[in-house]
Amino acid sequence: MKTQVEILNSIENYIKGICYPEQPEGLYAPIKYILSLGGKRIRPLLMMMAYNLYKEDCETILPQAIALETYHNFTLLHDDLMDNADMRRGNMTVHKKWDANTAILSGDAMLIMAYRLFVGNENGLSDKSLLMKALDTFNDATLGVCDGQQYDVDFESRDDVKEEEYMEMIRLKTSLLLACALKIGAELAGADDEDATHLYKFGEKMGLAFQLQDDLLDVYGDPAVFGKKIGGDILCNKKTFMLINTLNLANKDQKERLQAWIEAKDFAAQEKIDAVTAIYDEVDIRSICQQKIEQLFADSLKELEKVDTDSCRKQPLIDFAHRLMGRNR
Amino acid sequence: MKTQVEILNSIENYIKGICYPEQPEGLYAPIKYILSLGGKRIRPLLMMMAYNLYKEDCETILPQAIALETYHNFTLLHDDLMDNADMRRGNMTVHKKWDANTAILSGDAMLIMAYRLFVGNENGLSDKSLLMKALDTFNDATLGVCDGQQYDVDFESRDDVKEEEYMEMIRLKTSLLLACALKIGAELAGADDEDATHLYKFGEKMGLAFQLQDDLLDVYGDPAVFGKKIGGDILCNKKTFMLINTLNLANKDQKERLQAWIEAKDFAAQEKIDAVTAIYDEVDIRSICQQKIEQLFADSLKELEKVDTDSCRKQPLIDFAHRLMGRNR
Repeated sequence: MKTQVEILNSIENYIKGICYPEQPEGLYAPIKYILSLGGKRIRPLLMMMAYNLYKEDCETILPQAIALETYHNFTLLHDDLMDNADMRRGNMTVHKKWDANTAILSGDAMLIMAYRLFVGNENGLSDKSLLMKALDTFNDATLGVCDGQQYDVDFESRDDVKEEEYMEMIRLKTSLLLACALKIGAELAGADDEDATHLYKFGEKMGLAFQLQDDLLDVYGDPAVFGKKIGGDILCNKKTFMLINTLNLANKDQKERLQAWIEAKDFAAQEKIDAVTAIYDEVDIRSICQQKIEQLFADSLKELEKVDTDSCRKQPLIDFAHRLMGRNR
Repeated sequence: MKTQVEILNSIENYIKGICYPEQPEGLYAPIKYILSLGGKRIRPLLMMMAYNLYKEDCETILPQAIALETYHNFTLLHDDLMDNADMRRGNMTVHKKWDANTAILSGDAMLIMAYRLFVGNENGLSDKSLLMKALDTFNDATLGVCDGQQYDVDFESRDDVKEEEYMEMIRLKTSLLLACALKIGAELAGADDEDATHLYKFGEKMGLAFQLQDDLLDVYGDPAVFGKKIGGDILCNKKTFMLINTLNLANKDQKERLQAWIEAKDFAAQEKIDAVTAIYDEVDIRSICQQKIEQLFADSLKELEKVDTDSCRKQPLIDFAHRLMGRNR
């Protein structure tokens, strides 16, 4: 079995070694740029770790692992354009460094490159039927993430988003790619469907726990650790698990105050953040959200337990899950 | 063998029968919309006609044929956004009817749907190795068209585009998809590589002839027949085969007049069209372009001749090529 560091090194080396056509430079330079900005490479790592549960040669699936990472970075590229975001991983976004049309076209090429990597001849998989099966899972992921992004956009202009709808949106937008990374890794290793499904559910619930924790930290996190400004979701009235449930739990007075802040046009940012956080505190949404996170995280580990491999082989994935949640043991 | 009308009917029926997820509606409604706007369905038709050279059951490859049509319409959707075009096939473009973000995200979903259709389980191809081979050809087409679009964008801000560069750009942007449609059809029918290559070259040269004729008609066409306004390329200084070669052939006086019109900022549209057309007439670029079209078209038919099937089976493709060039016999 490979250590996580070994796998991450092989991922970075593979990305560095990708041969882009020299021309047209305007198409490929932005792709090289965004893939070089780093990131945690969670998705390819999970895919290779899942493969490693069953087989040793996890470098064999590097093309599929990097295909998923390429797809993920493509979604960031187009999402940043749609959100008009200036920065990504401490660097200028593609549409700021180049322009909107470059971001559209390079993104398109990147999505195509992801498919080429996934099915291309360069891969060393001899069993094409396993590849076709994994390709179906890849297809489920790629279209599902688009669904999630569309719901995210739709929810911005709705004020009646329900908890179930929010959970489904983050499942599609965040969890699905983690779940499919694990499932594809298992499928390419020839694991049985039951194992692949448990790994999928492990990733799905872990992803939900991770996203809810990210939402929680957006309100209650330590700015020095969180990496983003605190209160961003509150300022843009993002219909998170916390906002939706606070509205459900609030008494008449609390609901009126919260509604007034949601509709406010002229305000100092910090004042709104403090006021909404105060209402969150009154209904103790922090504990409710934390309970939900704990439940999802525990459920995710239970799915991993059900995977029918030697338990010592699963330890790296258990460790990974704890680190992802910021729980160093 | 199926008639062209039968094939076109099966294409339209398949497109009408595509089941889109009901939600999120904002993602799928634009896809349904653009696919319903019609068009000549040239690419799926060519694919099925090529298959029909070898096998009767060309409905078997409807998923792959519609995948190519879906891909083609995806490129129109994103190109219209990049060009800020208002109309497409007499209807509003997606980014006008909805908005830019919708055009980006629905386009992305459409590209993914094209891949799903191509490799999805719904297809009736039993030989997966033929499908994987055809998928490589599909991949060559999808990325190549992006290359072509990037060159097209790059050429707008360059004044030293050479004839070879222009021909390579239209090869990528227009011909490649016709060439690959034919090659994929042959590959899925199990044709040998030599036949598939001849069919590819037939489509490639036919596409070049068609695009050069489209450029020619943009200057010399009958407005009632051409369907677009005459002179569009002249107004935006598009570096076509005709403009590039007129600059090469022009004497000092002609070159100065042409250059002045290229750089002119304030002018009446018709005045510029008439003046540039006059210079085109002086060097007789019309005949030169027509000769090139004839040569390419003749070469394309020679490639089709080399395909090793009964000549009567090729007749529908020969007839198609003549009709595409507007030559009713």
